[in-house]
Amino acid sequence: MWPSDATSTVFTEIGLLFTGDPEREEIRDAALVAEKGVVRWIGPTAGAPPADERVCVEGRAVVPGFVDSHAHLVFAGDRTAEFAARMAGLPYTAGGIRATVAATRAATIPELVSTTALLVSEMTMQGTTTFEIKSGYGLTVEDERRSLEIARQFTEETTFLGAHVVPPETTADEYVELVTGPMLEACAPYARWVDVFCERGAFGEEHARRVLAAGREAGLQVRVHANQLGEGPGVRLACEMGAASADHCTFLGDADVDALASSGVVATLLPGAEFSTRSPYPDARRLLDAGVAVALATDCNPGSSFTTSMPFCIALAVREMGMTPLEAVRAATRGGARALRRTDVGTLGVGGRADLVILEAPSYVHLAYRPGVPLVAQVWRGGRRLV
Amino acid sequence: MWPSDATSTVFTEIGLLFTGDPEREEIRDAALVAEKGVVRWIGPTAGAPPADERVCVEGRAVVPGFVDSHAHLVFAGDRTAEFAARMAGLPYTAGGIRATVAATRAATIPELVSTTALLVSEMTMQGTTTFEIKSGYGLTVEDERRSLEIARQFTEETTFLGAHVVPPETTADEYVELVTGPMLEACAPYARWVDVFCERGAFGEEHARRVLAAGREAGLQVRVHANQLGEGPGVRLACEMGAASADHCTFLGDADVDALASSGVVATLLPGAEFSTRSPYPDARRLLDAGVAVALATDCNPGSSFTTSMPFCIALAVREMGMTPLEAVRAATRGGARALRRTDVGTLGVGGRADLVILEAPSYVHLAYRPGVPLVAQVWRGGRRLV
Ligand SMILES: [Zn+2]
Ligand SMILES: [Zn+2]
Repeated sequence: MWPSDATSTVFTEIGLLFTGDPEREEIRDAALVAEKGVVRWIGPTAGAPPADERVCVEGRAVVPGFVDSHAHLVFAGDRTAEFAARMAGLPYTAGGIRATVAATRAATIPELVSTTALLVSEMTMQGTTTFEIKSGYGLTVEDERRSLEIARQFTEETTFLGAHVVPPETTADEYVELVTGPMLEACAPYARWVDVFCERGAFGEEHARRVLAAGREAGLQVRVHANQLGEGPGVRLACEMGAASADHCTFLGDADVDALASSGVVATLLPGAEFSTRSPYPDARRLLDAGVAVALATDCNPGSSFTTSMPFCIALAVREMGMTPLEAVRAATRGGARALRRTDVGTLGVGGRADLVILEAPSYVHLAYRPGVPLVAQVWRGGRRLV
Repeated sequence: MWPSDATSTVFTEIGLLFTGDPEREEIRDAALVAEKGVVRWIGPTAGAPPADERVCVEGRAVVPGFVDSHAHLVFAGDRTAEFAARMAGLPYTAGGIRATVAATRAATIPELVSTTALLVSEMTMQGTTTFEIKSGYGLTVEDERRSLEIARQFTEETTFLGAHVVPPETTADEYVELVTGPMLEACAPYARWVDVFCERGAFGEEHARRVLAAGREAGLQVRVHANQLGEGPGVRLACEMGAASADHCTFLGDADVDALASSGVVATLLPGAEFSTRSPYPDARRLLDAGVAVALATDCNPGSSFTTSMPFCIALAVREMGMTPLEAVRAATRGGARALRRTDVGTLGVGGRADLVILEAPSYVHLAYRPGVPLVAQVWRGGRRLV
């Protein structure tokens, strides 16, 4: 039923093409040609060149495949009971992570692969074509290493998050020694990024700086979990360390906003976490108005944000964070790519990867206007149809 | 690939069956037999009797098909621009309805049927097996009549909402004459219910009472759009008129809550509307604690709540309205059935209709725990598989 695996495909009658390219961000009545996995041509349907196969989009909207730059997909166990208790009034703390750590350590590799594959499949069905996966539920040398080895089977955007929480069997000082020493050595070959949960209850500023510096020394690039549960040093540390992204950014002082704006570090907002922990949302409007680059991501994890849905995050960003539908779709595509320092994905431009989503709607606005409704009709990655 | 249209089906290995029956609301490791469209047996998998076909649920959760007791599905036109403007700060008023009225009047019957069918199909894919459809975008005798004739093709739960707003070509007094006279006469044969939008900017108390009384006189049962945009007489009028349901209930005084509790009128909450209009949510906790029967519905309409997703409404109810996941699932099933005065749907009990949803999750809690994620794996209505 799906088109064959042709060398080139022309998409015609795109009612509204959101390219993400600032030069011509939206094009009506557009066509796009993908060849050998890459976008070769964009223009009006009337002038579209021929190709091996033709997909008529029938007036629907097309957006770049979503880029989910923050996800924790390698884990075992369920935290349904903790969620239900929280919805009955208990607060969210970083402590619940330890339950997932215990279950993840006890799981076999096939079990972990199977859970990760299911979540990746959910993401794909919802239009995500590029995604990051973090470790962080192993917290021993071997459990972190195997988590990243598994993550690597699914994506090149792998992040070493040994410094997620301090495991119960050790002290913070001892654990940072381990993370920056043997654990980093074992994990670096499987990771592109290093990350740390810099937060009260997780890692303080000095420990976080050591973790990031050691990772950078080992050739990894930097990203930081920062300012999720309260104001703290995380965002400024991210800027100081040349991070690609400071993630969460829920509680920010003016100095944090200034640091983000002047450094160019992306503020990656994760509204699924605020939704699922009944916390106040980050103020995207304030960040955008200050000139900060903003990304949206799911933070998919079993404790604080068990969603894989970028469309859901877009709808929340518009309802709760002061973003317009256009700003939210930008943040979920180009924003995520920037947070991963990728220029080949997140936009649809000639030479970029042919990752695109056909929406069952005439406009990307419907991702916010029609919340909760599955609007992803087709997903193409590298010129091949996945959904 | 799907099971054939057998006379009887046994569902085995249901990890968690939410029956909605207060006597045994949740059953673990359950089985259920459907025969000739009706539930014939419920018990442990080990003791399940044979049937023509067998569906192994593989430990997943089963809930009754959702009952969406409030939806406006017969319309034409799009209000994307109004939505985008609202997200940029403009308030929601009842006035935007008139844009949909103009488009609906201009549409052909096949166009209206096609839009309605698409929305019904979306509902089904998301687990809804019983739904109400209102008129209210025609506002002439013939446009209301044909809307209800179309609605009747999809559901027996049709509602005459001629009194949605006063159309621009007439006065409120004249229009109420029309609604309670020739329009009611033309529409009553296609309708089970009469409804009125009792709100500042729509219909005041006296007009609303006349509309409901005339509908009741014509054999229709009563439901009311009440207290959406501010406190007003709607809820108390619903109780006075013996309505099945007062819908919205966003702004309530203590007297309103008391009236609902003592009358048994269902409070149907529509959080999709508050989501899409950036309004404060109704306080479900207050209603539940006062002993009011609560339902959840989508309010699907192109102006203020363009969602067809009952799972999305469940997630919002838990996040925003103080409901537990159990209370929200109850409200989306048994609650909706009660709001429609139906006892054959909304629960899974012997003798009731075999309407059920298999979730891609071990518990109904995941409908809130995994927001935005499409979790509906299979949908069965009257013992036949639809999805
Ligand atoms: Zn995270
Ligand atoms: Zn309504």
